[in-house]
Amino acid sequence: MQFPEGLKQHALEYAVQLEKEGNEVFISASPNFGACDLAIDEARNLKVEKLIHFGHGEFHKVDFNVQYIEFYMDVPLDILPSSLELLKDYKTIGLVTTIQHVRQLEKIKEFYEANGKTVVMGKPYGFAKVPGQILGCDIGSAASIDSKVDAHVYFGGGMFHPLGALLATKKPFVVVDPFETRTEQIDRYREIYRKRSRGKVLSALEAKKFGILLSTKNGQNNTELAKILKQKIEKSDLNAEILVANTFDFNSVDNLMEFDSFVNTACPRIAIDDTDRTSKPLLSSDELMEVLRMKEELKQSYK
Amino acid sequence: MQFPEGLKQHALEYAVQLEKEGNEVFISASPNFGACDLAIDEARNLKVEKLIHFGHGEFHKVDFNVQYIEFYMDVPLDILPSSLELLKDYKTIGLVTTIQHVRQLEKIKEFYEANGKTVVMGKPYGFAKVPGQILGCDIGSAASIDSKVDAHVYFGGGMFHPLGALLATKKPFVVVDPFETRTEQIDRYREIYRKRSRGKVLSALEAKKFGILLSTKNGQNNTELAKILKQKIEKSDLNAEILVANTFDFNSVDNLMEFDSFVNTACPRIAIDDTDRTSKPLLSSDELMEVLRMKEELKQSYK
Repeated sequence: MQFPEGLKQHALEYAVQLEKEGNEVFISASPNFGACDLAIDEARNLKVEKLIHFGHGEFHKVDFNVQYIEFYMDVPLDILPSSLELLKDYKTIGLVTTIQHVRQLEKIKEFYEANGKTVVMGKPYGFAKVPGQILGCDIGSAASIDSKVDAHVYFGGGMFHPLGALLATKKPFVVVDPFETRTEQIDRYREIYRKRSRGKVLSALEAKKFGILLSTKNGQNNTELAKILKQKIEKSDLNAEILVANTFDFNSVDNLMEFDSFVNTACPRIAIDDTDRTSKPLLSSDELMEVLRMKEELKQSYK
Repeated sequence: MQFPEGLKQHALEYAVQLEKEGNEVFISASPNFGACDLAIDEARNLKVEKLIHFGHGEFHKVDFNVQYIEFYMDVPLDILPSSLELLKDYKTIGLVTTIQHVRQLEKIKEFYEANGKTVVMGKPYGFAKVPGQILGCDIGSAASIDSKVDAHVYFGGGMFHPLGALLATKKPFVVVDPFETRTEQIDRYREIYRKRSRGKVLSALEAKKFGILLSTKNGQNNTELAKILKQKIEKSDLNAEILVANTFDFNSVDNLMEFDSFVNTACPRIAIDDTDRTSKPLLSSDELMEVLRMKEELKQSYK
């Protein structure tokens, strides 16, 4: 059995139930970041017959017997009225949430419509399945409707999910968090993260040795992309090696001291959220391409 | 290619060499704790033909093509004279070191013999291969000669290796560290760790739900032991589940909040070195047995 961090607190309870039904049970104690991150290596090593994954629907087909138990949470909606003040200047709003609350989207939509708004829900790119749903790696539900709305509303907990959608859109963005009873416009983070990205690119301009991070997680494994990036770096007369792990431990990554910069091919959020966990610039593949382009420009200008 | 933490700084250099010879190379970026911890899951996921493991000899046979490249380091021995003062009251000394320095054991022995000592080197229990060599899980080279010596000398860096040997012996114990140019008698840690162990046992007396840590690492996987401990706990009318990971991330372990105490079946050093990484008592299997015995005693005394 595998649980994301927020559901690990119920693991024993589910395990006891399954054992009562006559099953032999093991609980994965590894961090879990989604259905892109199935505990297949553990399951194979234990030679179990089935992996039960809690909290997420299927991400993509895998070569193992996985049962997905989705987890929906209906939370009180009495936070909604306090968001109207922040939205008073916007007529058409886009609405996004996490898988936990997708069953509440219709009620939330009704609330805003009753208060004079037009509500639009976009389609995810493919990893997320339900209109209005977003994932760390799929903010299509927000990005695909950015041009059609006056503002976006994220309903749900935490900053992980709205941050991704924020950075992929341009319109005003409001977070409505029923757990912290908080409504907040978060547009300022766009500029903060834009500057951070620019800082990474500039500080990687001197880099000569690039370590390309390649994850073995079922839904984060981009071996082909890693190989293409390696070739592109080498074409610019620079060193590149592919660095492999399941979950990256940045203490160990930093022990690979010869590298001047790291390039992420795993969960796209690593190059956004984990940049402080290493002292070297940790680039997305787009940021790498910008670095290589600027390096070429610099070379030309010295000719 | 896989390197322990201390050798990761040379990974790129070796990778470039192998690529020049026409190989396709991936570097493991995961933490590595020894040849008990081969990156076989990564190698299988990448479908590589061979895993080259640097820094350790073979731990045991595994079902994968592994090439071991041992790593010996001859360090200056001019630290040795400064250890004689600490050893002046002891005639017969036991000598231990890590795999890196085993080739220097003969010269170190000669030095002490030239200074009037009798030097004894014990045999490891089996995971370590060379007389005088110790590992985190094999301190036989020290423990097996404890009754025959007046004192032990550990030659090498760090406290990880000598601590294990210290806790398995009773005689005075001197560390001779050529990297920090330090000679020190470390006997006081025996009492510190004895008290810590006792503290863990006492604080686990109220525990009702035990999580048994089972690693999938090739040389740390003790599934049978984990199952036996689960049965023993359940026989005492307590809950136990088996918690599985490759390397344990104690943030995730702690997210399994229902458990009152954890029991280690992986690297024996986890229950010694990592006890501060979780807020719950993290027991060795011996400490668990003591907890169950004392719980039974308590039950009897209330009858």
